Amino acid sequence: MTALPLALYTHAVIEHATRFSNQRIAPVDIAALRENNPEHWMKATAIRALTLDAVAAANSGHSGMPMGMADVATVLFEKHLKFDVSNPQWPDRDRFILSAGHGSMLIYSLLYLMGDKQVTLDQVKNFRQMGALTAGHPENFLIDAVETTTGPLGQGIANSVGFAMAEEIQRAQYGRKLVDHNTYVIAGDGCLMEGISQEAIGLAGRHSLGNLIVFWDNNNITIDGTVELSDRTNQVQRFKASGWHVQEIDGHDPEAIDAAIVAAKKTKKPSMIACKTHIAIGHAAQDTSKGHGALTDADQLAAAKAAYGWPGAAFEVPADIKAQWEAIGTRGAAEREAWEARFAEASKQKQDRFNRAYALDAPNKLSATIKALKKQISEQQPKVATRKSSEMALAAINPIMPETVGGSADLTGSNNTKTSDLGVFDTDNRKGRYIYWGIREHGMASAMNGMALHGGIRPYGGTFFCFTDYARPAMRLAALSKIPTVFVMTHDSIGVGEDGPTHQPVEHLAICRATPNTYVFRPADTVETAESWELALSSKETPSVLALTRQNLPTVRTEHKLANLTSKGAYVLAEAEGKRQVILIATGSEVSTALDAKALLEAEGIGTRVVSMPCMELFAEQDEAYRRKVLPAGAAVRVGIEAAVRQGWDQWLLGERAKPGKSDFVGMDRFGASAPAGELFEKFGITAANVADKVKALL
Amino acid sequence: MTALPLALYTHAVIEHATRFSNQRIAPVDIAALRENNPEHWMKATAIRALTLDAVAAANSGHSGMPMGMADVATVLFEKHLKFDVSNPQWPDRDRFILSAGHGSMLIYSLLYLMGDKQVTLDQVKNFRQMGALTAGHPENFLIDAVETTTGPLGQGIANSVGFAMAEEIQRAQYGRKLVDHNTYVIAGDGCLMEGISQEAIGLAGRHSLGNLIVFWDNNNITIDGTVELSDRTNQVQRFKASGWHVQEIDGHDPEAIDAAIVAAKKTKKPSMIACKTHIAIGHAAQDTSKGHGALTDADQLAAAKAAYGWPGAAFEVPADIKAQWEAIGTRGAAEREAWEARFAEASKQKQDRFNRAYALDAPNKLSATIKALKKQISEQQPKVATRKSSEMALAAINPIMPETVGGSADLTGSNNTKTSDLGVFDTDNRKGRYIYWGIREHGMASAMNGMALHGGIRPYGGTFFCFTDYARPAMRLAALSKIPTVFVMTHDSIGVGEDGPTHQPVEHLAICRATPNTYVFRPADTVETAESWELALSSKETPSVLALTRQNLPTVRTEHKLANLTSKGAYVLAEAEGKRQVILIATGSEVSTALDAKALLEAEGIGTRVVSMPCMELFAEQDEAYRRKVLPAGAAVRVGIEAAVRQGWDQWLLGERAKPGKSDFVGMDRFGASAPAGELFEKFGITAANVADKVKALL
Repeated sequence: MTALPLALYTHAVIEHATRFSNQRIAPVDIAALRENNPEHWMKATAIRALTLDAVAAANSGHSGMPMGMADVATVLFEKHLKFDVSNPQWPDRDRFILSAGHGSMLIYSLLYLMGDKQVTLDQVKNFRQMGALTAGHPENFLIDAVETTTGPLGQGIANSVGFAMAEEIQRAQYGRKLVDHNTYVIAGDGCLMEGISQEAIGLAGRHSLGNLIVFWDNNNITIDGTVELSDRTNQVQRFKASGWHVQEIDGHDPEAIDAAIVAAKKTKKPSMIACKTHIAIGHAAQDTSKGHGALTDADQLAAAKAAYGWPGAAFEVPADIKAQWEAIGTRGAAEREAWEARFAEASKQKQDRFNRAYALDAPNKLSATIKALKKQISEQQPKVATRKSSEMALAAINPIMPETVGGSADLTGSNNTKTSDLGVFDTDNRKGRYIYWGIREHGMASAMNGMALHGGIRPYGGTFFCFTDYARPAMRLAALSKIPTVFVMTHDSIGVGEDGPTHQPVEHLAICRATPNTYVFRPADTVETAESWELALSSKETPSVLALTRQNLPTVRTEHKLANLTSKGAYVLAEAEGKRQVILIATGSEVSTALDAKALLEAEGIGTRVVSMPCMELFAEQDEAYRRKVLPAGAAVRVGIEAAVRQGWDQWLLGERAKPGKSDFVGMDRFGASAPAGELFEKFGITAANVADKVKALL
Repeated sequence: MTALPLALYTHAVIEHATRFSNQRIAPVDIAALRENNPEHWMKATAIRALTLDAVAAANSGHSGMPMGMADVATVLFEKHLKFDVSNPQWPDRDRFILSAGHGSMLIYSLLYLMGDKQVTLDQVKNFRQMGALTAGHPENFLIDAVETTTGPLGQGIANSVGFAMAEEIQRAQYGRKLVDHNTYVIAGDGCLMEGISQEAIGLAGRHSLGNLIVFWDNNNITIDGTVELSDRTNQVQRFKASGWHVQEIDGHDPEAIDAAIVAAKKTKKPSMIACKTHIAIGHAAQDTSKGHGALTDADQLAAAKAAYGWPGAAFEVPADIKAQWEAIGTRGAAEREAWEARFAEASKQKQDRFNRAYALDAPNKLSATIKALKKQISEQQPKVATRKSSEMALAAINPIMPETVGGSADLTGSNNTKTSDLGVFDTDNRKGRYIYWGIREHGMASAMNGMALHGGIRPYGGTFFCFTDYARPAMRLAALSKIPTVFVMTHDSIGVGEDGPTHQPVEHLAICRATPNTYVFRPADTVETAESWELALSSKETPSVLALTRQNLPTVRTEHKLANLTSKGAYVLAEAEGKRQVILIATGSEVSTALDAKALLEAEGIGTRVVSMPCMELFAEQDEAYRRKVLPAGAAVRVGIEAAVRQGWDQWLLGERAKPGKSDFVGMDRFGASAPAGELFEKFGITAANVADKVKALL
């Protein structure tokens, strides 16, 4: 290959280059790029042309990134990515993650070109339209070949840490014959400016995730202008500071791209390849922030195609180029078949375990294990915090579910997430099933999503419930992307006590419940905690939040029931002794408060039912007959009790045929305070006496 | 000073040291430390002793960090920090931010020792108890000398970027005679592992915030164990990659600390001083994760004090040491007086502007300006998106409020946050009042909190409403800490259209409304947007969220009213023509849908009132008589309309004396989809026709 017009950026690794030296935007000679490697050029330009056409048709989308990264993607798919378009979910495939998800036409173009069954030409033509699989940002729940839903920046790169960890853990569990693949990521400047990227970079470096290869689309452009407007970080130095292998290349030079990937695959460190690219290359908007968005001007589009030497009309790909891409799409078929043959040779037991974990089927034993624990607890009636109850449940579950991987964001002893059998995941113990995530709630949550999406693993991880805030973008994506991640959120109320309002959640139950497709469990004791875990680990498409106490609670489920009562969302825990005049509805730590209030009221002859409501979402899913059984229409006073804001409760207190003017709520309407927990419950009136008073005021 | 036992760590700057070399924990010789500098030692040890006593008395808290950082804090307060304990809010003081807020006894000890009026010995003895100012984590709303509420890790260091920017902007506005101070931060490993720290580091480096000096408490210990469990990042290299000045010192060597601060004050870059310290120094738990928490064992406490050579009983500080500290506390009095003299010499206009901005008083002109804009809009009736309405309001406001500082997280053209008069804040334009925050929603929100807390500035900043998720920890702290930051959140529903569900908020109104002390404005048109801005910029203790549309909306306030109707939270926008049978309640973009539905219903003779409800919190604050006027009890059908989840609406639809069984809600109960906005509103039934149908089904 002769000298490239981008002579500044050779594929030699440039050490210690500063961000600024990177950022001088050299001119680019499209004609030379075409001539230097015409076959590569046309394949890559098919991506560019389809992107321009689809975005123009939609009058919406992001043209520039797929155009700029087309060369990298072409070399990756043509020469490296282990992928078979006929079976895009083959377990030992390489993973490709488009962290810069706004460049979705990159992945749709690739899939269409390779002959993906879902992403047809019609889908490309209907980019971003109602009902199309080709959504504005790539969605894993629409297209099989899309590994993860991206768009909110930084999520893909943090997901990828989970993908890479999952691969390491499964390789250790099943052997290299069955698990041996890489995770490739395309990340943009936006991904790297988001704080979550630092959490991801630190984790990948710490764990020497050598199977992780990140391409940084170093185009120096953001929506507001050049990157320098807001950042001068030397990304090369930053990645190196966390132990990454870093290379800098011209992202339009196929030989440099290939050589960098070869080197990245060899190193035992995670790799970052800084690809100097031109956003919207060849278009009038090249190297400008306008090039980031939707390029829809027909004349400019035609001019760009002319400069490319692209022959086709809109959405037309010349047959020879399409054929070359289809060959790339089937390149991995032989590898897949070889893997299937190796898999067939594995023991039946290994196959079953592998298949069960990938299918997200809980083991048959799970139900019996939970029942046995419940029986024991109902007999022994321990008084423990539900975070401890959770540990007791995990101690029973983890040995029978080798697919669980636990962890905590530096609160292991507080979240009670570590059981003795897990072992610690580390560079010298890839079998370890416990991750010390560090003080990285967001990175943990996002990496857990990646682990679950990788397949074969059921991740759970803990932090304080208040720090749901930090993990929130990833928790939303779990819900949206239908990932059954389990978030173990302890210290779930003012019961936190002395740490004070910065650490006391009051609005977080409402936040989690407001989010579609999320189960929020707030169990009242060890029995309900065990039931919640059973449900969380049986869920295939819905993440679970377990809100658990810091403080000890009595066992309220003192009568053993085989049935998982939590699965109904709410149930009658204690029936009124005389005529039912009152229904108290409570969750978690307030269920025992409700029972105490019932005792006070019954002593005065006021018949009081106590309903435990560990999961509002599951209760809302029940048929009306069941809901009516638990919350009968009409005469009884209803009082809800939860040490949190009222938002979300009115459907049960005012709706569901409640009697007008006959309901109340005992909870929080402000932030908490710093004091011993018991005093706080008194101060804020979350006591049996106050509940009884409120009831009597309504009677 | 003779060689320290920590000989490895001299105060010479160690270039290119790796994190690992830092992390070898050298032994420490307490006796030598005492002997080398006895006077310093006893002053610093007063902090250690008070910390040990207070945590032991509370049986709760974090002992190790204040013990480890006592030397740094002592040198900082004794020799550098411009601070006057008699007036801890003097505007030109240096700011001291304890980002590692769990070490709150550090700041309480310092304040008590110096003679702060609020933090008395009784307060120290009541650490973490009910009603004490000495909360578990430092709270700015309890103690004047506490600059910001910390505890959620990483917030303090990101706040500090805002403090330092505010100082630069105000210095440019008022001159060095009135504004010339530094911002000092103590940050721990937790702060640096949180992703938000990277956003802060990148911003500070980009803007060469030379007045920002961060001490990293490099003690190598987190709650779960040593830092290496979860991170091997070379922090020195990481900070340098973003353009920081970095020094590495022995954090127990007072001369090294002093020399490092002197050097840090000289450089024009932001400074990080890596202080190698021993957590819980001198205690049995030194250098262990146990040392991070509450050290309460009486014998170990006594042994530590003996090793220190500390003479006092619990909570006793020898008079000479107390006197030395009290002298430190008044060290800044002369500087304050000199400043007051300079301030007195400033022009009356300058003084008034300064005082008004610090008091968070809106200018008198604001009300008239908003009224004039409203009148013009009601006449012209433009059809614009409320994000554009917001820009129109800002174009009127910014010229009369020089204290506003705007910005966006790389969505300037989408958030419409930049008005032409602001200028861009940069290293060569400190007068610029617009910040390009980059793709850093979290860092932006936290830094805005810091700007507001610094005083003299009213920050507002924009991103997509969906990315409330990223900013959420800082938005909660704004509410908790009573900071009137304004969050400009555009693209507030499925009206986002083609970008799809990753970018379409459905639960975010509920999330913001669930948070105490937060005004959530969702204006229906330009008039309500202007009213919302007036309220947001008049708030002194409550942050505001402005949820604004991407899509154009008609003007619904076509009749000019002088009164700010949004201040009531909800009001009758259009009265029923005949007998009132229906009340439609809507917010934002759905108000015009409600008006269209009213037209359909009135055409069938169904008298329909439309209530616009731009701010639920303000409506809830009104007296019952007003609420009853807007939502009369009884017969009328009520339907709520909002392109979001129902959570939060039931109080108006089922409560407030609604007629049972006669209400409904038109909104979202799932995530959105990728398609043109108009089609999405049809698909999800958020249309006038569907509203009319629902009403008729209830009649």
